[in-house]
Amino acid sequence: MESETSLTCPSGWEERTKPLGWSRRFVFADYEATRAFLDRLTALSESSGYYPNLNFARDYVVITMQFDGDTVDPKLAQYAHAAQAAYDGKD
Amino acid sequence: MESETSLTCPSGWEERTKPLGWSRRFVFADYEATRAFLDRLTALSESSGYYPNLNFARDYVVITMQFDGDTVDPKLAQYAHAAQAAYDGKD
Repeated sequence: MESETSLTCPSGWEERTKPLGWSRRFVFADYEATRAFLDRLTALSESSGYYPNLNFARDYVVITMQFDGDTVDPKLAQYAHAAQAAYDGKD
Repeated sequence: MESETSLTCPSGWEERTKPLGWSRRFVFADYEATRAFLDRLTALSESSGYYPNLNFARDYVVITMQFDGDTVDPKLAQYAHAAQAAYDGKD
């Protein structure tokens, strides 16, 4: 757990309003890479208790998260930044 | 591999046209059940080489498959029936 959680939409993600939500499509070279990323997301969900909508097939994963009450939820924001870090290989 | 593959849309699935596609939403009691089903679908994909679009969150999985040329592909049809059998606990 970071001491400070960014409440801003991660770079490269799409932010929608009404209702407020963040999403990003991640593209992979093959299914093995896709599945490795899904495994990382599973671990994130199991540690945070947050399960975003995930859409995937062989070579892509789309993460879609919606915020209740049009307010950024720190838990969801942390998930987004952690997912991005996992994709970037920075975690 | 079954000796005969049904080319008809499995019971409970939705069939769309233009383009031809089959889909079904499966609902589960909890994430553990959802994940167990996803694991079954992964095994199906790895054995068949077919990776449908999957959409899921904590307690549901939506399988969406589209056929090229508006013709039922036996490999995809077999995947659909196998997924349904896995859900029904009949496999």
